[in-house]
Amino acid sequence: MSDVRIDDLPIRDELRGKSPYGAPQLDVPVRLNTNENPYPLPEPLVERIAERVREAARGLNRYPDRDAVELRTELARYLSRTGGHQVTAAQVWAANGSNEVIQQLLQTFGGPGRTAIGFEPSYSMHSLIARGTGTGWISGPRNDDFTINTELAEKAIAENRPDVVFITSPNNPTGTAVPAETVLALYDAAQAAKPSLVVLDEAYVEFSHGDSLLPLLEGRPNLVVSRTMSKAFGAAGLRLGYLAADPAVVDAVQLVRLPYHLSAVTQATALAALEHTDTLLGYVQQLKQERDRIVRELWTMGYEVTASDANFVQFGRFEGEGGAHAMWQRILDHGVLVRDNGVPGWLRVTAGTPEENDAFLDAVREVKNEQEQSA
Amino acid sequence: MSDVRIDDLPIRDELRGKSPYGAPQLDVPVRLNTNENPYPLPEPLVERIAERVREAARGLNRYPDRDAVELRTELARYLSRTGGHQVTAAQVWAANGSNEVIQQLLQTFGGPGRTAIGFEPSYSMHSLIARGTGTGWISGPRNDDFTINTELAEKAIAENRPDVVFITSPNNPTGTAVPAETVLALYDAAQAAKPSLVVLDEAYVEFSHGDSLLPLLEGRPNLVVSRTMSKAFGAAGLRLGYLAADPAVVDAVQLVRLPYHLSAVTQATALAALEHTDTLLGYVQQLKQERDRIVRELWTMGYEVTASDANFVQFGRFEGEGGAHAMWQRILDHGVLVRDNGVPGWLRVTAGTPEENDAFLDAVREVKNEQEQSA
Repeated sequence: MSDVRIDDLPIRDELRGKSPYGAPQLDVPVRLNTNENPYPLPEPLVERIAERVREAARGLNRYPDRDAVELRTELARYLSRTGGHQVTAAQVWAANGSNEVIQQLLQTFGGPGRTAIGFEPSYSMHSLIARGTGTGWISGPRNDDFTINTELAEKAIAENRPDVVFITSPNNPTGTAVPAETVLALYDAAQAAKPSLVVLDEAYVEFSHGDSLLPLLEGRPNLVVSRTMSKAFGAAGLRLGYLAADPAVVDAVQLVRLPYHLSAVTQATALAALEHTDTLLGYVQQLKQERDRIVRELWTMGYEVTASDANFVQFGRFEGEGGAHAMWQRILDHGVLVRDNGVPGWLRVTAGTPEENDAFLDAVREVKNEQEQSA
Repeated sequence: MSDVRIDDLPIRDELRGKSPYGAPQLDVPVRLNTNENPYPLPEPLVERIAERVREAARGLNRYPDRDAVELRTELARYLSRTGGHQVTAAQVWAANGSNEVIQQLLQTFGGPGRTAIGFEPSYSMHSLIARGTGTGWISGPRNDDFTINTELAEKAIAENRPDVVFITSPNNPTGTAVPAETVLALYDAAQAAKPSLVVLDEAYVEFSHGDSLLPLLEGRPNLVVSRTMSKAFGAAGLRLGYLAADPAVVDAVQLVRLPYHLSAVTQATALAALEHTDTLLGYVQQLKQERDRIVRELWTMGYEVTASDANFVQFGRFEGEGGAHAMWQRILDHGVLVRDNGVPGWLRVTAGTPEENDAFLDAVREVKNEQEQSA
């Protein structure tokens, strides 16, 4: 083949010179960089997945259930049981990861000639999927402690009149949950300004000290809560994201969803995992304790730590000598991969198993000692 | 919940009043409407899928291989073995159905302010995905016999200067393959006009009397061949589409693909199916014979039949008394579901098992008798 480069092809101008999104996949003993759940699925669930997929494979020559009715019913049951709010299958929609859910929402409610706002730093896929769907992106403000300043956020919405508002709670990469009052204030501001769709991204909510804001759906047809099975269900490899909203929102995304987007094996695997919800939520409890331990120990070592309601912890600050990236490299030199999200002065570490977290904390302690000795 | 309707929501204007794409999923004894492969996967393959998915499930808490290297290697091996052209893994990209492949291509090479052309009637998802990605759509011409008129098509390209050109071979819903000379002429016209990306959709090529046009990739960096495992591999439920192109095209779609878009269970299942290629291609041979039989028998009954290189047959013409839709309903009344694609005067039937095809041919014969008796 020829030595053609990307920029020799007739790609869109705004893609020229860009790099694909994605954390470095390095071969390191302890990987705490992508907020994966460290606990493999329990063996009985592995067997149940094999069983349900075997059954699905017998009909694999046929298209899958286009509307994923059984899966949406079980997801609705899970949300109703754990989210403090009754949700029906008609209010639930599922796709290949919450990224695809967000993409479908932006294709329906954003897109060319429209804009979306997020309060940054936040989940960087929101702005990247905005770019991929031709939606203009507005970077909204946060306080220095990474909480949302309600007044400034309301002002940004009133001034920019975005079509879609993203609120991530708990926020990624900072870990902070957003109070219900803030979500309500921003929802009202967004309706007054346009009206706009408000997407509350609760990918990490199962790890929160507080409750899901699912009950806010009541009477708010332009509010969407997005969720994932990647984190609490320990199934990042499954790529199953979902949303809860007014049934009309679910109807609306049908207009842009690719037909039969969710494979029969994905549906079968997700259904098997949902049968084992209680076991998986048990791991969540362990991870919450470990998360709190990481916060305490980093604090004790003298680091600044952002309050965390997620399965990860943001810590800092690293300002001199190469800043956060230099610290990221030094921790990596001790065999532990954390995440440099590009938030100046801060790094993010995922809560792993107790052993992995010990390895991380030891690595940080060693780096700290090295730094003190060389100082 | 409230009684909110889609149009009460702040959706994009061009989506208002639209309906989701998708064939009616009716509960009918013989369903020959969605070009599915009628042969269930053989039991040894079903077992192999369960085995590979069990293995994948043990690591499901981790994100899948983002670049699907093993799968792309095996798809490249399949193409090299059957397509008359050596293809490397770097030239192959896979996604959740060829629809997602096409969506990624349009996000990269089409999108807002750009246009795509197809020669209609053709696979209707091309224009729908164009709409979903904000790409302007141009409906190019065909001859009355549904072949592409090269001269008129070149003219349409020269006049409209599209950014993306779709050529579907064999064409859906008409069944006709496109000669290599036509593809070459349109590629040259597209390069002279802009340059543009040319997407050759070979979803049904394994059923063709002729060969894949994969060798045309050589020296043509703006040509993409798209494929699917839904048809020849009998795996519509798996949602595995892929493309072959210059490695730069594969690099370029990385800029818009959702990270980790392809789940670990999808990758495992596809790899299992690729281990059983020869068995599955054996079914393709049976289906080609059945397809040819359907063509012959419909012809003998006096219907017009479009030459078919696919696993389906377009037949007509139905002009009086409600046209094709009335005929579709009469065949359905005899327990057989075929497809009314909206091509005036024509219907499409998928080649099923010999028994299903007998049922279809009997139904058509009975309808014909009823019509002759009432005439």
